[in-house]
Amino acid sequence: MIAPGGKFPSTSSLEALIDALRCLPGVGPKSAQRMTYHLLQRDRAGAERLAQALQTALASLRHCLRCNNFTESEICQRCASSRRDQSLLCIVEMPVDAISMEETHAYQGLYYVLMGRLSPLDGIGPKELAFERLFARATDGLVNEVILATNFTNEGEATAHYLSELLRARGLKVSRIARGLPVGGELEFSDAATVAQALMERRDYG
Amino acid sequence: MIAPGGKFPSTSSLEALIDALRCLPGVGPKSAQRMTYHLLQRDRAGAERLAQALQTALASLRHCLRCNNFTESEICQRCASSRRDQSLLCIVEMPVDAISMEETHAYQGLYYVLMGRLSPLDGIGPKELAFERLFARATDGLVNEVILATNFTNEGEATAHYLSELLRARGLKVSRIARGLPVGGELEFSDAATVAQALMERRDYG
Repeated sequence: MIAPGGKFPSTSSLEALIDALRCLPGVGPKSAQRMTYHLLQRDRAGAERLAQALQTALASLRHCLRCNNFTESEICQRCASSRRDQSLLCIVEMPVDAISMEETHAYQGLYYVLMGRLSPLDGIGPKELAFERLFARATDGLVNEVILATNFTNEGEATAHYLSELLRARGLKVSRIARGLPVGGELEFSDAATVAQALMERRDYG
Repeated sequence: MIAPGGKFPSTSSLEALIDALRCLPGVGPKSAQRMTYHLLQRDRAGAERLAQALQTALASLRHCLRCNNFTESEICQRCASSRRDQSLLCIVEMPVDAISMEETHAYQGLYYVLMGRLSPLDGIGPKELAFERLFARATDGLVNEVILATNFTNEGEATAHYLSELLRARGLKVSRIARGLPVGGELEFSDAATVAQALMERRDYG
């Protein structure tokens, strides 16, 4: 890629870094080149810190056995807390969505983080999202109501619909946060008041 | 940043990775979060490879003593080659610009890579770009003509102007690649024919 004419001095570790940066979402060949030169020329300390942070994160982060969010212990702090309402389980797509919910200060229940949404075109189905683990979590006997808080995108809606069918079949009360968010909008980019409104006006689903 | 309300379970290695990714140019807090979740959830192999590539590059890449480009040895392959014209020295801003020149197949001389351009607002002056090393390189007795091939942006033009004054003061012939490139354009994004044209029509400068 960097030596199409074969004339440019080959520096394999340079090419390897440019290539490795392309694993980041939204980073193409040109961006990867710019990032590489920036790191090597202007921010070697940052590059060193990034390498360390990657390895530390890979080594220490795992999924909470209860909520599936990232944590450094078996059960995350929130799931281990006795101050949360064990009867409410809010299903979100990503960790940032749980943060959006927390920022409303209007929810005291627990979460389940899907780490994605159904997306057949990307090859992400119920198996990839480990729905069985969610069903096991939701039927622990303490959960009374499952609140679907996936995004109001097409994929988020499809995920909510799919989950509602299977959760109701297991005898659970299922609700959906209200469409207080703009159609097509995403939790992550909404202000806390709008998310709070949507939480308050959740409706029976399915 | 990830726990503004202080309520979200703190996972310090997660936050450290999000923070570390922000050293990449053009990556803000939201992008860093997305990249982090993508790496941890969908591409742990890529994250591992990136960490390795960063460390290998940091450990093995240095600047060529003659052209200042990145290399894994003291002198890069091109500078060590006996087939290049020692009397021509082409000054470019970045390694990608040298690649653009090579792709024209119209230049057989050598390069000096500034690794940047004068940019007072970013605190990048003659000292940060190590112009003294360039002057020592250009006055080795073999160089006959210095070709200024910095970009035709404001900063690239200012850099060319500044260099031409000091290089001519040292008795060197100084030329500038022709403005065959569109005004405001950058080498990196031009096609080879246009760059070749600009090289052919270089004019005395200053």
